[in-house]
Amino acid sequence: MRDLPQLLDLIASFSKENPFPELPLELYEPCNYLLALGGKRLRPALVLMGHELYQDNVEVALPVAWTVELFHNFSLMHDDIMDAAPLRRGEPTVHYKWNTTTAILSGDVMLIYAYRFLARGGDANTVLQLLHIFNRVATEVCEGQQLDLNFETRPVVSIPEYLKMIELKTAVLLGAALEMGAICANAPAQDAHHLYEFGRLAGIAFQIQDDLLDTYGDPVKFGKQVGGDILQNKKTLLVLKTLEIASESDCRELREWMQTGSEDPLKKVAAVRAIFDRNGIPALVAGEKQRFQQEAFRHLESVQVQGSRKAILKKTVADLLERDS
Amino acid sequence: MRDLPQLLDLIASFSKENPFPELPLELYEPCNYLLALGGKRLRPALVLMGHELYQDNVEVALPVAWTVELFHNFSLMHDDIMDAAPLRRGEPTVHYKWNTTTAILSGDVMLIYAYRFLARGGDANTVLQLLHIFNRVATEVCEGQQLDLNFETRPVVSIPEYLKMIELKTAVLLGAALEMGAICANAPAQDAHHLYEFGRLAGIAFQIQDDLLDTYGDPVKFGKQVGGDILQNKKTLLVLKTLEIASESDCRELREWMQTGSEDPLKKVAAVRAIFDRNGIPALVAGEKQRFQQEAFRHLESVQVQGSRKAILKKTVADLLERDS
Repeated sequence: MRDLPQLLDLIASFSKENPFPELPLELYEPCNYLLALGGKRLRPALVLMGHELYQDNVEVALPVAWTVELFHNFSLMHDDIMDAAPLRRGEPTVHYKWNTTTAILSGDVMLIYAYRFLARGGDANTVLQLLHIFNRVATEVCEGQQLDLNFETRPVVSIPEYLKMIELKTAVLLGAALEMGAICANAPAQDAHHLYEFGRLAGIAFQIQDDLLDTYGDPVKFGKQVGGDILQNKKTLLVLKTLEIASESDCRELREWMQTGSEDPLKKVAAVRAIFDRNGIPALVAGEKQRFQQEAFRHLESVQVQGSRKAILKKTVADLLERDS
Repeated sequence: MRDLPQLLDLIASFSKENPFPELPLELYEPCNYLLALGGKRLRPALVLMGHELYQDNVEVALPVAWTVELFHNFSLMHDDIMDAAPLRRGEPTVHYKWNTTTAILSGDVMLIYAYRFLARGGDANTVLQLLHIFNRVATEVCEGQQLDLNFETRPVVSIPEYLKMIELKTAVLLGAALEMGAICANAPAQDAHHLYEFGRLAGIAFQIQDDLLDTYGDPVKFGKQVGGDILQNKKTLLVLKTLEIASESDCRELREWMQTGSEDPLKKVAAVRAIFDRNGIPALVAGEKQRFQQEAFRHLESVQVQGSRKAILKKTVADLLERDS
């Protein structure tokens, strides 16, 4: 069994041994650029962990791990165009450094390369199983991105709608990463299902935590500007929960802040945070996160593998879900 | 054996029975819109024809035929953004009717749907074979689009470079359509290869013909504005051939015209056409087309299937390559 740093080393080596072609330079250079910016490589690590529950020869799952990482980066490249984002991982986004045409076409070829690595995922039956899972999840991620775009302009979004959006946009890919890793190791179908659910539910918990950290996190540990969501008037779970339970006057005040600009950002963040605080929103949202987290770990318990083999996966996900909030 | 109209009917029925989901509306409506604009449906028909060389149950090849059509439409949706094209098949393009974000995301999901239909292409071994072919060709189409974009701003493009670009951007998909149809019918590997080469070479001939028709076609039969390439200063094979063989003064005159606007479009088209004419370019380019066409049909001859089964495919491609030029 390998620990997380060892798995990340394997992924880094695989990535180095499988670069994009050199030519046409204009097509592939942006792909290599975005991948070189790094990121946590959580998704490919989950593929390998799903595999390691059953087999030690984790190398066979590397192409599928890379499929998931390429897909994630493809979606970042295209989402950054749609969000007009200038920065990604602290560096210029592809459409910003090159242009929109480049970011579209390089993203397209990155998605196709995800499928190229998938085709190396095992024998024909395994690849067909992987293809069905990956196709479904790739579709869902696009649907989630569309819902996210729709919510920006919709006046009212319900909490179930919001949870569905984060599930599709980010959580299902975490579930599929674990499931696909398990499939590469010929895991029983029941186990593969529980692993998918574990990843999906933990993914939802993780996104809820992200909402909390954006407003309440330690700025040093969180690594982003605290209050960014408030300044962008994002309809996070904190906002939706407030609109659900707060008094009419607090709801009105929150709505007013969400229609103002950010001339005095500190004042705006403090004011919105005060509304959340006096309505006990952080605790309610933390409870919601806890609910998904517990349900997630129940699915991990149901996986028919001895506890010692689950230790690394369990610790990795638990650590992710216990960052200071 | 079914003739072309019968095959097109099958494709139309399949398309009607397999629409995109209804929701999210903003994601899938543009996909249905672009597909409803029609087009010749040549590519899916080639898949079915490749299959019909070997087996009568052509229905089994319909999902793969639809894969190829969806991929083609995905590439149109994204290329139209890159080319800032307002019209496609006489109607507003997706990015023009909606916006760029919509055209990016709907195109992405259309590409993923191409893979979803591919997964229905037969047993696991067949799907794995199809996946390898499709991945390779999808990559090549992106590379061809990149080369085409590069050529717009490059001062010099050689004829071999140009031929490589049209091969990648459009011809390989025609070859792969035939090859994938044959694979669905368990055709021998040698035959599948010859069919790929037939489609690829015929595709190059077809693109060369397109260059000719754009300048010399009957405007009524061609269905586009004659001289469009000249007005857009496109580096077509007519231009590249002229720059290769014409006198220095003719080359200079052509280059000058290609750096002017289109204040007097009729004058510009007439002047450039005169340069082509006095250098015998149309005949030279027609000869080039002929060369690819003949090589293509030699590969069709090598396919180990009785002549009567090849009749419809042969006639369809021959008709396409004998439009008035």
